[in-house]
Amino acid sequence: MRDADVLRRLEELGLELPSPPAPVASYVPVTQAGRLLFVAGQVAMIEGRLLHPGRLGQQVSVEMGQESAGRAALQALAAIRGHLGGSLDRLVQLLQVSVFVAADAEFVEHPKVANGASDTLIAALGPEGRHARAAVGVASLPLGASVEITVTAEVSE
Amino acid sequence: MRDADVLRRLEELGLELPSPPAPVASYVPVTQAGRLLFVAGQVAMIEGRLLHPGRLGQQVSVEMGQESAGRAALQALAAIRGHLGGSLDRLVQLLQVSVFVAADAEFVEHPKVANGASDTLIAALGPEGRHARAAVGVASLPLGASVEITVTAEVSE
Amino acid sequence: MRDADVLRRLEELGLELPSPPAPVASYVPVTQAGRLLFVAGQVAMIEGRLLHPGRLGQQVSVEMGQESAGRAALQALAAIRGHLGGSLDRLVQLLQVSVFVAADAEFVEHPKVANGASDTLIAALGPEGRHARAAVGVASLPLGASVEITVTAEVSE
Repeated sequence: MRDADVLRRLEELGLELPSPPAPVASYVPVTQAGRLLFVAGQVAMIEGRLLHPGRLGQQVSVEMGQESAGRAALQALAAIRGHLGGSLDRLVQLLQVSVFVAADAEFVEHPKVANGASDTLIAALGPEGRHARAAVGVASLPLGASVEITVTAEVSE
Repeated sequence: MRDADVLRRLEELGLELPSPPAPVASYVPVTQAGRLLFVAGQVAMIEGRLLHPGRLGQQVSVEMGQESAGRAALQALAAIRGHLGGSLDRLVQLLQVSVFVAADAEFVEHPKVANGASDTLIAALGPEGRHARAAVGVASLPLGASVEITVTAEVSE
Repeated sequence: MRDADVLRRLEELGLELPSPPAPVASYVPVTQAGRLLFVAGQVAMIEGRLLHPGRLGQQVSVEMGQESAGRAALQALAAIRGHLGGSLDRLVQLLQVSVFVAADAEFVEHPKVANGASDTLIAALGPEGRHARAAVGVASLPLGASVEITVTAEVSE
């Protein structure tokens, strides 16, 4: 897909890609084997602070969860773009998105929350942004985040 | 493997493949990159209704969890078959099955529940149905499902 | 990477690889498709008994969680080595490590626990041990384990 098209679509949505994440000591934002990319788990951050910490079904509404999922999706996209040298031109398609939602035992709207990630990715990438998805409700997430997502993608070599 | 063999084995078990899942707005049942297939998370449905909603260790017994896992496994197989144009002839082997069990903190029998999926897949596919598996207990699942599974598989091109 | 180098680094750390896991009835320790390996979920065992069962934020401290994660990582490495015929010479790099931490709703130190796996893998494998990582807190794990990890890796054919 064309990097310029993605940036234009995001701009039309009033969204922009965050800076790509820096590698930390013991793990890296993206690994690659052949045409496959694996993106490390993303929790939504805005200016160095967690967006909407807490749990769905408690302090965090479905709308806030969707916003967190959408932001985490943009961070995953930024990580891919950083890995590919600052362009999405070589991104072929997304493959799999896993959405982990910090939720209590009674929560059932995981798909709605996950749509915050899926819809953002499709809006940005077009049909190649479609993906196989799993959404599950977990007990807690790093730092107290409400949503964490992982992404697997295909690139051209 | 031969599609006819799989259908025959399932028939001998008194099982049949459900209809392949339809794509929904923001994600798709199966994605493919080269020889790899990624199947979206499956929760067990019978005639449009959740099979055995609730949590293991609470309303849902291990036997009910196994039945849910087995049904979700058949749905994953149906999704793969649908993706491959209505035949499993090009399915080479399963690779990874993740089993998410809605469970309380004291539950420990995740492997027994997950066997419901694994045993169904081996019974249907034979040795090529074997897979690397992970089973974990989660706080809650979409719609209140008791079990969700994801499958990764290898196909011939 | 050279198998002898890995064994030497582990020895310097006072660590040794456990025996590779045996296949069980319905699933296998490792599957392979082309250059990709998928390792089944590992919970830390010492001489046939769970290491540090329980939950983070409850009976299990962060340090105990790190130790469990590190041990599970060694088991994953042993599984890869067993799959490759008793040598890591053909291991190219790790790709993805998922760390499932049995944790209560208030727990936030999943990354510290996961570092127990990541740091062990980097110490053993060097730069090729780096990986994309996701850490989440789950309700419960098989047998009452405190940590479960899955690993995806690239090998040469």
